Amino acid sequence: MPLWTIHYTPGIFDEEEKHRLAARITDHYEEVGLPRFYVVTLFHEVRPGDFYVGGEPVTAGVRVVIDHIARRNPDRESRRRTARWIKRMLQPHLERIAGLHWEFHVDETSDDLWMINGIAPPPPGSDAEKLWAASNTATPY
Amino acid sequence: MPLWTIHYTPGIFDEEEKHRLAARITDHYEEVGLPRFYVVTLFHEVRPGDFYVGGEPVTAGVRVVIDHIARRNPDRESRRRTARWIKRMLQPHLERIAGLHWEFHVDETSDDLWMINGIAPPPPGSDAEKLWAASNTATPY
Amino acid sequence: MPLWTIHYTPGIFDEEEKHRLAARITDHYEEVGLPRFYVVTLFHEVRPGDFYVGGEPVTAGVRVVIDHIARRNPDRESRRRTARWIKRMLQPHLERIAGLHWEFHVDETSDDLWMINGIAPPPPGSDAEKLWAASNTATPY
Repeated sequence: MPLWTIHYTPGIFDEEEKHRLAARITDHYEEVGLPRFYVVTLFHEVRPGDFYVGGEPVTAGVRVVIDHIARRNPDRESRRRTARWIKRMLQPHLERIAGLHWEFHVDETSDDLWMINGIAPPPPGSDAEKLWAASNTATPY
Repeated sequence: MPLWTIHYTPGIFDEEEKHRLAARITDHYEEVGLPRFYVVTLFHEVRPGDFYVGGEPVTAGVRVVIDHIARRNPDRESRRRTARWIKRMLQPHLERIAGLHWEFHVDETSDDLWMINGIAPPPPGSDAEKLWAASNTATPY
Repeated sequence: MPLWTIHYTPGIFDEEEKHRLAARITDHYEEVGLPRFYVVTLFHEVRPGDFYVGGEPVTAGVRVVIDHIARRNPDRESRRRTARWIKRMLQPHLERIAGLHWEFHVDETSDDLWMINGIAPPPPGSDAEKLWAASNTATPY
């Protein structure tokens, strides 16, 4: 469910930092009950001449686009809590970089329009979802 | 309208398979009345070190992001039907690959905020849309 | 807030044209009151073998995906106005290219699920937003 696409300019992340960030993001979702394999993280390096903020090319930029599918926030306060939760995942990895523009936003889409390995994932909080979380695989249920 | 963005790890698709999959996807939308040129498919190869599932790099992954604009499902059952319809497009191309994580989700957005070649596409099911489908071009109407 | 992702086939834009287009897009959002740094533009070159329209590879294609976060249109007529406004930003840069398929769509997402440099941006039209626009930086408020 969560799909994180992380656009970044060269030099922000090396191989090891990407792995560590992807693992850390996954840890956070696991803590709230999601199967680890629900979390997909794609890194996409973008050259400064392809990455503009305010109409100007930037040499240090990170733009994160997050799709939330398995869970939806019911109201404004819970959406804001989610934003602060995401901030806490990213900030330790990014605050060390001077002059960085970093930004994220989340889109919430329907879990009815989602499949993993051809299977519609089980309802949130169901026993089947707990089994998926425990086994960390998508099995027919 | 449908925009399919297909992120995949190296070795999943060769040139010919990409063409075949894009054509097959388009066939399905044409069958339900859409002009063929509404269907845009973008393939995006992602190295394993940039593609994480559950916080770990994967060597065989396909993550499909679909934007539906021209048509919107009115309720849960029709959304689930749409998901199964999309599964049937993808599965024959993907089930041959051992150990593959493949996943898709669909976002539904407003057809008011959409233009092709500077033209707002005609209403769903209208005579103008049928003309666009028959001629397979965006012409003023 | 607006995130523009511009997928294009090789030869459509050179470095200078990308910069000019990114600046022009930003000018338009600034005119309606947004801080310039709210506008992020990412260019993504896609080889013809990875870019399909109607199931066939295209040699001249531009597909623009726009996320609107800070502002949301209240009704159909304002959405259509927004689409025409975006068309006017793109058309001068694209109409010179013979045989081009160009297309855009906009998704509207919640401003509660959005942060820049770890800060939730101020409410639309607020004094704090005007300060951000005047200083062109994200400062605590």
